Amino acid sequence: MTVYLVGAGPGHPELLTLRGAHLLGRADVVVYDRLVAHELLDLAPTGAVRLDVGKTPGRPGRPTRQADINALLVEHGRRAATVVRLKGGDPFVFGRGGEEAEALLAAGVPFEVVPGVSSAFAAPAAAGIPVTHRGLSASVTVVTGRVGGSDPSGGVDWASVARTGGTLVVLMGMAERATVAEALLAAGRPADTAVAVVHWATTYRQRVVRTTLAGLADVDVPAPATIVVGPVAALALGPGDA
Amino acid sequence: MTVYLVGAGPGHPELLTLRGAHLLGRADVVVYDRLVAHELLDLAPTGAVRLDVGKTPGRPGRPTRQADINALLVEHGRRAATVVRLKGGDPFVFGRGGEEAEALLAAGVPFEVVPGVSSAFAAPAAAGIPVTHRGLSASVTVVTGRVGGSDPSGGVDWASVARTGGTLVVLMGMAERATVAEALLAAGRPADTAVAVVHWATTYRQRVVRTTLAGLADVDVPAPATIVVGPVAALALGPGDA
Repeated sequence: MTVYLVGAGPGHPELLTLRGAHLLGRADVVVYDRLVAHELLDLAPTGAVRLDVGKTPGRPGRPTRQADINALLVEHGRRAATVVRLKGGDPFVFGRGGEEAEALLAAGVPFEVVPGVSSAFAAPAAAGIPVTHRGLSASVTVVTGRVGGSDPSGGVDWASVARTGGTLVVLMGMAERATVAEALLAAGRPADTAVAVVHWATTYRQRVVRTTLAGLADVDVPAPATIVVGPVAALALGPGDA
Repeated sequence: MTVYLVGAGPGHPELLTLRGAHLLGRADVVVYDRLVAHELLDLAPTGAVRLDVGKTPGRPGRPTRQADINALLVEHGRRAATVVRLKGGDPFVFGRGGEEAEALLAAGVPFEVVPGVSSAFAAPAAAGIPVTHRGLSASVTVVTGRVGGSDPSGGVDWASVARTGGTLVVLMGMAERATVAEALLAAGRPADTAVAVVHWATTYRQRVVRTTLAGLADVDVPAPATIVVGPVAALALGPGDA
């Protein structure tokens, strides 16, 4: 009996790992999030229990609370042979997988973390943007747009982040894009710094908007979207970009 | 005729993506690096040409120069139906994939980037370390240990990196570990900041050493190794860590 915290990758079903696919193929229970591709759920056996924690029963549009997801994993982990917790991107990169691992560890339920391709790097790549590139960027910092919030660690030091000189990737940042742009400009990043917004990266719905820090607040793209800030965001090293 | 820049993932062959496996399965030519698992090369057809650019013919221990790899990809990309350029981790994260993409774009050779699981996140995860975690880290910065060097962008602003308040992951950093530790201490990171060194992450040879910033210089672990700096480096959320 094991719970597998599996990264589903950035969106395209073929960007799941071989290990993730093998585990899904023998899952008794699959616990999945809102953004996970439905093709991936089809990899599980017909009889597997599929639990969507992207919603709450009786409360449309509201995801299940993290504490309830943790309890669900412990409960099923004690009963089923193979529980796959399928999370968008990578479970340990802004995925709250650490909290789920802690809950399983505390309950004595065996588990394993199976990393996935993170949107933090794959979303820029899908737009032809390498997050690091000779002469342009020698580091990359990944944050979320959840500026402030109830989590004390939400306190990202934006001034220092702005001054690393490297690429900045903001996940789940569209709602706070004006605040993020303002913080980076205040820390000295030039207004004409290149910015790319990648919507539904790696899926057939993908859309890329190119702008600058000065223009970011005016970009009107719905979630899910990844924001890339820095000189590399002007690159378009994609097959269709010749 | 297409050249695929494929991320091989962090080391374990099952951490390749489904798309990477499918492409390898129909490759005419595979151009691979030193750290790529040999099980992955077995996924290519028996008759496929396998080119190891981790060495130079006649010069043992010396990898092929990047310019020569670029030329090789262009040359084979013009002749073969499917060329897979297999790179450790992700091609666009310190993988010099951007340079290869530029060369292919300039030569008019069609190509596609297939992201992989990056060691930057998977190596910490393999040691039970989530790079972000509620209350401990709300950002993650990835750099290499190639401090200085001939690349002008090698100029990482270590003081700012140290002050982001988030997790720091240093790839290929063992040779420069003393310099890195010194730079972070000088920038105000406490000497007792948790550090983990993950050697050959995700493979059967994996070894994890836990220390602090003060102790990093004394860690004697050969390459390849990933260094994780920050409070999350003290976590051990692994199956064997209960």
